[in-house]
Amino acid sequence: MTSSASKAATGTVTVTGLMRDISRVGTDPHRGGYSRPVFSAAETELRSWFIEQAARRGLDVTTDHNGIIWAWWDTATGTRKDAVITGSHLDSVPGGGEYDGPLGVASALVAVDLLKTRGIRPRRPLAIAVFPEEEGSRFGVACLGSRLLTGALDPDKARNLKDADGNTYADVAAANGQDPRFIGADHKTLQQLGLFVELHVEQGRGLADLGKPVAIGSSILGHGRWKLSVYGQGNHAGTTLMKDRKDPMIAAAKIMISIRDTARNYKDARATVGRLHPVPGGTNVIASRVDMWIDVRHPRDEVTAALVESVHLNAQVIAAEENCTVTFGTESLSPTVHFDTGLRDRLQTLLPDAPVLDTGAGHDAGVLAAHIPTAMLFVRNPTGISHSPEELVDDADAEAGALALADAFAGLLGEAMLLTKDRVQAPMMAG
Amino acid sequence: MTSSASKAATGTVTVTGLMRDISRVGTDPHRGGYSRPVFSAAETELRSWFIEQAARRGLDVTTDHNGIIWAWWDTATGTRKDAVITGSHLDSVPGGGEYDGPLGVASALVAVDLLKTRGIRPRRPLAIAVFPEEEGSRFGVACLGSRLLTGALDPDKARNLKDADGNTYADVAAANGQDPRFIGADHKTLQQLGLFVELHVEQGRGLADLGKPVAIGSSILGHGRWKLSVYGQGNHAGTTLMKDRKDPMIAAAKIMISIRDTARNYKDARATVGRLHPVPGGTNVIASRVDMWIDVRHPRDEVTAALVESVHLNAQVIAAEENCTVTFGTESLSPTVHFDTGLRDRLQTLLPDAPVLDTGAGHDAGVLAAHIPTAMLFVRNPTGISHSPEELVDDADAEAGALALADAFAGLLGEAMLLTKDRVQAPMMAG
Repeated sequence: MTSSASKAATGTVTVTGLMRDISRVGTDPHRGGYSRPVFSAAETELRSWFIEQAARRGLDVTTDHNGIIWAWWDTATGTRKDAVITGSHLDSVPGGGEYDGPLGVASALVAVDLLKTRGIRPRRPLAIAVFPEEEGSRFGVACLGSRLLTGALDPDKARNLKDADGNTYADVAAANGQDPRFIGADHKTLQQLGLFVELHVEQGRGLADLGKPVAIGSSILGHGRWKLSVYGQGNHAGTTLMKDRKDPMIAAAKIMISIRDTARNYKDARATVGRLHPVPGGTNVIASRVDMWIDVRHPRDEVTAALVESVHLNAQVIAAEENCTVTFGTESLSPTVHFDTGLRDRLQTLLPDAPVLDTGAGHDAGVLAAHIPTAMLFVRNPTGISHSPEELVDDADAEAGALALADAFAGLLGEAMLLTKDRVQAPMMAG
Repeated sequence: MTSSASKAATGTVTVTGLMRDISRVGTDPHRGGYSRPVFSAAETELRSWFIEQAARRGLDVTTDHNGIIWAWWDTATGTRKDAVITGSHLDSVPGGGEYDGPLGVASALVAVDLLKTRGIRPRRPLAIAVFPEEEGSRFGVACLGSRLLTGALDPDKARNLKDADGNTYADVAAANGQDPRFIGADHKTLQQLGLFVELHVEQGRGLADLGKPVAIGSSILGHGRWKLSVYGQGNHAGTTLMKDRKDPMIAAAKIMISIRDTARNYKDARATVGRLHPVPGGTNVIASRVDMWIDVRHPRDEVTAALVESVHLNAQVIAAEENCTVTFGTESLSPTVHFDTGLRDRLQTLLPDAPVLDTGAGHDAGVLAAHIPTAMLFVRNPTGISHSPEELVDDADAEAGALALADAFAGLLGEAMLLTKDRVQAPMMAG
């Protein structure tokens, strides 16, 4: 990998150029798109790339005990307090898009370049943060890095999380240079942070429909993950008469349809089964158990709760019809996050052309919002498709995003004080 | 592993004792039961155990190029012709039962003991055969060893079969001492075989309902495996509105229910989806594709064909309703096998108490039936459950099975000629 492509003909580093630098890392020939699980060879290569890019800009780079990389642009005094933070993540879902995560990191680097070109000397420190395991694709807990930083996740629970190969987070983190004994809430770092603005590719069609390149985020829909297991009777596919079966796959199929129908009954609700695992999973074997994971989101947390309750009750009835049983448990639950209104108002002043949109996708910004004023910028995705190779950002929009970030920081870096204190106090995980 | 348990208090080796010897090999703590994929550490340990047991009985053991172990009890002349063959397999489905395969191998060893105890000197050679990959659980083709032996499977196709980790059969066979260049039809060995009787745990409730310990098999239901892939639109689970989705999981769910309903419309049909794989398979990702495998069986091959045709048509309609598309292909197809009627009649004379039953399960006996007179003996399974940890054989029934095998061989070994020539000529694989 060379960085030659990141400089346009004029010698200026562009977001498009930086993205092109890393466009061959972690491509997935089977699924299409990119598979960059946290601490995989691909994600590790991206982390090294970021550290090199940050060092090239004179930023002071450290990787903390939770695996978060911080690249600091300090003030003349060197005091790290009330800092303006930006950044995103470099890990991806399996077969994900090119921009989900890296766009925010590349845009942060270019925003620093733009600010330096303008001769800005910040009165507040600025740092670019790269958070590990934002997607939760490897260890099952989304926003793992920011949840550890803020104390939202018990470090013992984190250490014992396992990936699909049975490796614990503790072992994988240790193999990547972290000491897993020290993961967990980091009050020293938290106290340095003044506000956080995460730039991210939009994961829906909001900007495409409005014909605008950049939006300011207002809120993240509440969401959660539930695991539903259907227990039937494992048996031979050839010898067991249809009438004698207790087939959990049939019950699971009916439950999936019921989940979709239930979600359609609640305006603005989204419910998805994207992961399903029959046990033992042989072609000639009636499954004995089917595990499925249900992702549910709604702007109003009480609607999410009602929808999930309905899903659970329907699943019990359907399972009984098929002589099966179910177990049902919450894997994670995050209430709706409303970003700091003062920071949002200030961004609207600094970026008068940007509309305000909410999002159904979770982000590290949602975790940090419980601790510091937080905001997001979204960059237009003309396909509206996300977590898929078809996710897209036009080159001009990518540069427009970095410019918006720089414009926002040009305003924010001159301010000595935080804008508001209406911090969201809701816990980020429960159950 | 010691063999001490295989001798009862009297010093006699019993089937129950032999089964106890191997009862700790390949247990599956996650699924329950046993996971003994072909050429895994567990199956290899069982192969070594069998070779030791055969050698202890003075049998001449060889492993052929197809990975089939042959343990020969030769006549005084040493001529290997018109041989009586028994045996089964040692591999299992994931989380399978204790008896499916190993019962036939252990019973064959005990039958040899019983014949020797009776002072029988065979006028025809007898061999115990252990066939690899009977279940098709690792490389996807059931009865792989007997299909290679008889030429029913193209050796090039076999060499390129891959397991879930991407290892080819050629590489795995080579690592287990076979030379993969030489796999395929083995006419020299086939010419030595006179007839084959495979003893197997029953995989249904036929004997349990009749109150009998041992049955003679009459036929194997025709069966096949089809792969159906549903293509939709991968997207983010949180940002994609329900109305904008092309979710292949919903289509797959409806198709599974349709398959079950279709099978119920045909008397004696069985259709199963026990294996299903969403791609990419993330909790927060609407799948872009779902692969599912359909196992269909019926005594009449034309009914199987009609049922599968109906499944395919229904799947196309359902997919279109969900704005998805399907691809559909035959992975394997085996017509109904009627065992040699002359051999069956002779076994009924030798075992007058044994009822005659058919089976819905495939076996190496079904493959060999196209080449030599073939029969099966079934041993009662009180649960009727198969391919599951709940598969069961009572100790007394296990010994009754070996005794029936010995009684059959006592009659057959004295006979110089085959009994009938109404060999089944239908091809064992097509499509």
